[in-house]
Amino acid sequence: MKIGIFGSSTVAQTIGSKLVNLGHEVMISSRDLDKAKDDAPSPAEWATTNSAQAGSFAEAAAFGEILFNCTAGMHSVEAISTANLNDLDGKILVDVANPLDFSGGFPPSLSVCNTSSLGEQLQSAFPELKVVKTLNTVNANLMVDATRVSSPTTIFIAGNDAGAKSQVKDTFLTAFGWKDIIDLGDITNARATEMYLPLWVRLYGTLNTADFNISVAR
Amino acid sequence: MKIGIFGSSTVAQTIGSKLVNLGHEVMISSRDLDKAKDDAPSPAEWATTNSAQAGSFAEAAAFGEILFNCTAGMHSVEAISTANLNDLDGKILVDVANPLDFSGGFPPSLSVCNTSSLGEQLQSAFPELKVVKTLNTVNANLMVDATRVSSPTTIFIAGNDAGAKSQVKDTFLTAFGWKDIIDLGDITNARATEMYLPLWVRLYGTLNTADFNISVAR
Repeated sequence: MKIGIFGSSTVAQTIGSKLVNLGHEVMISSRDLDKAKDDAPSPAEWATTNSAQAGSFAEAAAFGEILFNCTAGMHSVEAISTANLNDLDGKILVDVANPLDFSGGFPPSLSVCNTSSLGEQLQSAFPELKVVKTLNTVNANLMVDATRVSSPTTIFIAGNDAGAKSQVKDTFLTAFGWKDIIDLGDITNARATEMYLPLWVRLYGTLNTADFNISVAR
Repeated sequence: MKIGIFGSSTVAQTIGSKLVNLGHEVMISSRDLDKAKDDAPSPAEWATTNSAQAGSFAEAAAFGEILFNCTAGMHSVEAISTANLNDLDGKILVDVANPLDFSGGFPPSLSVCNTSSLGEQLQSAFPELKVVKTLNTVNANLMVDATRVSSPTTIFIAGNDAGAKSQVKDTFLTAFGWKDIIDLGDITNARATEMYLPLWVRLYGTLNTADFNISVAR
């Protein structure tokens, strides 16, 4: 399947590499294909070494049958708005981003929360898309390999379109090793998983590792 | 030990009963000792049947060597401000409340979050107190009996005073059955556990039970 990824950060590259390994065709995207950042190679260099492609946000939107949002949450709407609306129409957007605001230093706050969320903003800004919020509660390495944490843990999914959620589960979450998948309901539930991030960030500081996740025991 | 509990709701009564069973002397408190609410008996009736006492918020503050905040989070500062400051001086306040705002219906939003929290508001409003935020991530029945969920789960603690946190762990959390206790650090970390509540509320709706909790796997 052709997957267009908005973004070129470590998250985008980690998901991109995994999707290539699973047999998908992948294009990551950026405003500047030759700029390395966050200890990650430039999009162009990553594409070369990963048998993938790199392009603009608009090119990734046109390329993908399914799209991933791996941009920084505060800039996601702006980035995706550079795509042609025709290239979004009817497609699934797997939104793994969080609206983290580092302008006040660390730990970050959220640029939107409580009465809305990034997932809801995206669904509202781009009604052509079927936004599925998932994987945003774990580190990139764990997103694509649930077995990095020894005991089975939980991943959440939310979105308005049942068929889209089902496809994301079958095509990606299961392939990434996730077994305990809790469907919270419609996209307003993105609020809940994004507001978990402040706890994630502090646990990261306390545990001194990003290889952790929560399991919902019931 | 003498424990003064701000509040008389189900949470206050559940914690109160457990503390009586553990051998403590308990006073719950309310503006109206004869008013039953939330399917809970009136404070006066509860006190009679539980070998405990019921009084005003100010009387509970004077009574307790250690204090619990079990009031509705949106009204906690107002409730505790009716106490004499002398009766708060140097005491631990175990804050188990959440600033849930039901004015917009269900699910609730938070009346404070992201850049502050109820725990921080209480510590700021009452610098005489040593505020320890804990137990606010689980239902009242689970607060006082961690074994209600079959597999071991995690409870968080946050506060500025290390000695106070240590005493709360030893005196209460261990007695309530909690083994995996993660100290997140100072009281600003109350933000993290309070912002988990939107996820808790939605999980409650999805799982159709309040007998669940998260375990941090690492």
